[in-house]
Amino acid sequence: MAESPLSLRLAQIAELVQGKISGDDQIVISGVAPFDQASHMDITMAAEANYMHRIEECQAGALIVPETCPVTTGNLLLVENPRVAFAKVMAHFYPMPRSRDKISKKARIGEDVSLGRQVEIGDFATIGNRVKLGDRVILGPGVVLGDHVLIGADTTIAANVVIQAHCRLGKRVLIQAGTVIGSDGFGFAQEAGRHLKIQQTGNVIIGDDVEIGANNCIDRGTFGSTRIGNGVKTDNLVHVAHNVVVGDHSLLIAQAGIAGSVTIGKHVILAGQAGVVPHVTIGDRAVVGPQSGVGKSVPDNHVVSGSPAMPHRMFLKVSQSLQSLPDIRKRVLRLEKKLRELTKNPGE
Amino acid sequence: MAESPLSLRLAQIAELVQGKISGDDQIVISGVAPFDQASHMDITMAAEANYMHRIEECQAGALIVPETCPVTTGNLLLVENPRVAFAKVMAHFYPMPRSRDKISKKARIGEDVSLGRQVEIGDFATIGNRVKLGDRVILGPGVVLGDHVLIGADTTIAANVVIQAHCRLGKRVLIQAGTVIGSDGFGFAQEAGRHLKIQQTGNVIIGDDVEIGANNCIDRGTFGSTRIGNGVKTDNLVHVAHNVVVGDHSLLIAQAGIAGSVTIGKHVILAGQAGVVPHVTIGDRAVVGPQSGVGKSVPDNHVVSGSPAMPHRMFLKVSQSLQSLPDIRKRVLRLEKKLRELTKNPGE
Amino acid sequence: MAESPLSLRLAQIAELVQGKISGDDQIVISGVAPFDQASHMDITMAAEANYMHRIEECQAGALIVPETCPVTTGNLLLVENPRVAFAKVMAHFYPMPRSRDKISKKARIGEDVSLGRQVEIGDFATIGNRVKLGDRVILGPGVVLGDHVLIGADTTIAANVVIQAHCRLGKRVLIQAGTVIGSDGFGFAQEAGRHLKIQQTGNVIIGDDVEIGANNCIDRGTFGSTRIGNGVKTDNLVHVAHNVVVGDHSLLIAQAGIAGSVTIGKHVILAGQAGVVPHVTIGDRAVVGPQSGVGKSVPDNHVVSGSPAMPHRMFLKVSQSLQSLPDIRKRVLRLEKKLRELTKNPGE
Repeated sequence: MAESPLSLRLAQIAELVQGKISGDDQIVISGVAPFDQASHMDITMAAEANYMHRIEECQAGALIVPETCPVTTGNLLLVENPRVAFAKVMAHFYPMPRSRDKISKKARIGEDVSLGRQVEIGDFATIGNRVKLGDRVILGPGVVLGDHVLIGADTTIAANVVIQAHCRLGKRVLIQAGTVIGSDGFGFAQEAGRHLKIQQTGNVIIGDDVEIGANNCIDRGTFGSTRIGNGVKTDNLVHVAHNVVVGDHSLLIAQAGIAGSVTIGKHVILAGQAGVVPHVTIGDRAVVGPQSGVGKSVPDNHVVSGSPAMPHRMFLKVSQSLQSLPDIRKRVLRLEKKLRELTKNPGE
Repeated sequence: MAESPLSLRLAQIAELVQGKISGDDQIVISGVAPFDQASHMDITMAAEANYMHRIEECQAGALIVPETCPVTTGNLLLVENPRVAFAKVMAHFYPMPRSRDKISKKARIGEDVSLGRQVEIGDFATIGNRVKLGDRVILGPGVVLGDHVLIGADTTIAANVVIQAHCRLGKRVLIQAGTVIGSDGFGFAQEAGRHLKIQQTGNVIIGDDVEIGANNCIDRGTFGSTRIGNGVKTDNLVHVAHNVVVGDHSLLIAQAGIAGSVTIGKHVILAGQAGVVPHVTIGDRAVVGPQSGVGKSVPDNHVVSGSPAMPHRMFLKVSQSLQSLPDIRKRVLRLEKKLRELTKNPGE
Repeated sequence: MAESPLSLRLAQIAELVQGKISGDDQIVISGVAPFDQASHMDITMAAEANYMHRIEECQAGALIVPETCPVTTGNLLLVENPRVAFAKVMAHFYPMPRSRDKISKKARIGEDVSLGRQVEIGDFATIGNRVKLGDRVILGPGVVLGDHVLIGADTTIAANVVIQAHCRLGKRVLIQAGTVIGSDGFGFAQEAGRHLKIQQTGNVIIGDDVEIGANNCIDRGTFGSTRIGNGVKTDNLVHVAHNVVVGDHSLLIAQAGIAGSVTIGKHVILAGQAGVVPHVTIGDRAVVGPQSGVGKSVPDNHVVSGSPAMPHRMFLKVSQSLQSLPDIRKRVLRLEKKLRELTKNPGE
């Protein structure tokens, strides 16, 4: 790999990530690569013991390592948090795509649309009336924005995403392809066995620095708003029902589903395929394990697992015991038999 | 909020929902709002005890309450079913969007397409050949209809929905964005470890008054039809496989998945993330709990939960006992030890 | 049904599927139909005992049956594997749609795009720069291909599918509508409670003869590639995270979810709604049951079920015992009481 305009000396990378160098701080780095594929112009990471043991065989020009790394050979960039440093180095060498400052003539722009500077609008995108787009917003091909949608600066919406009327997105948001924001919530009143639709009149409000995965569905509020806090990240195929509130910096892993009017705190993690019943609260910093079914509120800082969900430690114990259940059953029957015999023939 | 053209006197609302008034029947109502946000021009609902206790603090111009409501202050609209009355009042103040009677010049209309009166077709929609659309049908931007699709009157299809060839939708159907109807079913024949595709030649037939959530997948039949009955409502991210039959007025909650050739009765509820194996039958009015895995047929009126699914009462008992399993295990070991000692040293 | 240009004599069908005929090998067959709906011009299948017992009442012109079929009346086509023979006969009478050799003027084609012969591109499709499409590729309406996408010959992409930049698909691939290939993986580094995006620089590589269901999400690799092997088939709403490798001829059933950096062997079956945690390996020919949660690696040929997953036989035993758990608990308490009495009053 030739030296690229993005190339940096190791000393410059150290400044970028606030790290210390052991080795040659003038070596030129032109890219990032995995440990086993890195060349002498790449930087890589050795954050875990199994990689640190193998540093001598690594071909990389430099390695990001934890401050506690016992190795001293090679060009090392010692940092407090290697993963964070790695993310920052990656962001330098592979910057987010920038707006091409081009509005496709094949797009449809509604009336009274307000466009910031350097907005990019892809082919066959449909922008409703009275939409406002901040500076450097990027809309991919086939994106549909309903009337009155507001989108903050530096937000990127991938291809074929649909954002329904009146929804609002913050700054630096990234929405992956195929996602639907502002679909009607699942609200019906039952009358003689038929389901009358309850009109869904609210919207979705998404904060700053949010990333929403591909093919998500985030429903509008019945009244008021479904709210996704700042810094929230969702994985693929996540379902967020009407009037849910997701607190800042929470993570919703793939295929998680959150029923209506649930309140999720800050820094929460909902693992993959987890589900939450309507109207409960999940406290700040709580963690819900994969495939868990949350049937009642979870206090702050609690870790729960299982379906129905229980404290995670209990879940581990129960899971361990589960396979002995058929055996326990047999032993109880045997105990009963023995005790019956003992009672019949005491003292034998 | 000013008086709107939709404003009604409380007496008119009482007529609309067949309720009785306690208080001023001439008060003008201009909107609907949640209990805690309603102004003197809004109507709200107090259906449950915790709201009824707080009626005196509510700022709403009028309240929808159950006939049994013990409170007598304020302007009350007493009804048999407050939720149903609420839905009807909502439908008055927030009517479904009407067709704008406008066919976008940016859409592609196939050959021999038959359009009813006042049809709306969004930008970049693609209508196949020999498609028939009933009166007042609304197709959002980016909708794709395959050849020979039939859509009944007053049906609305949101943005970027795909309806494949030969599928048929009834009247007053609502399809949320991103949904796919008529994708190929998952049908393969295994030959020497390879999977030969079995061509999927059928279609999907959807009844009247159906709502399908966002990003659903409803596969066409291998032969014949996958059928969604009248009044069925599905939530987001629901999977319905080939040749499934869903009976009238059943509810499929978010992320539920139904395998091939399953028959679901009328008025069934499949809760969120529930799954059903192929070829079983779920009887009328049956309820399947959240995250449950239905492995065999469920009779009419039964309520099942768990994975694998069991009678719901049994599931509740098992769930309660589950956390004591590690303890039971210990106690059985202790019992065995004691009994061994007792047998060795009887009478001690 | 009239004789169609696709009509075959039974002798010709026998040749096609390498079967033997009992009955009239000159009968003309013009279509395929289910057992109970077949007419004298159709062929149908009676692979299982319950159908074989009813062959005399079947109106079909001919029946595909297993070689071991005890019936001797009617026109029978005896084959080793009726389902495979059936798939081949279906493929003759209902051939895959062929390219219409037409590039829509309403599509957007990027720069330096290389098109094979007889390519079909639907309306409002967006083709990025430097894309290469093989011969007879079909792109449905609204399909979006990012820059540098490569697609092999005879591959069909249904409507509104998004394939992001640099992804590569093999030959004879079929992608159902609404699917997203090449979305960013869920990769973040945590710094003081905030989640820094780790740029996702890889791609997705899909082999030959793959079918991907509707509304799937297949993320690009963080570095390198997410790989889907030859002959893999996925059902609807499947999630495949960054850097997953799926071996040849594996099946991923509806709503299955695979976390990052998982390696799945060849001929594996992941049943519906199953989930797999990051970084584990699932061996060749392993089977994961429906709704199972795979928390650690699964060796070749193993069958696992449950959440957390355990050997399938154990799962069956545990499932059977589970409903007796509340009873076991009571019996243990009773045993303890009895034993206490016995110890107090020995010999009574």
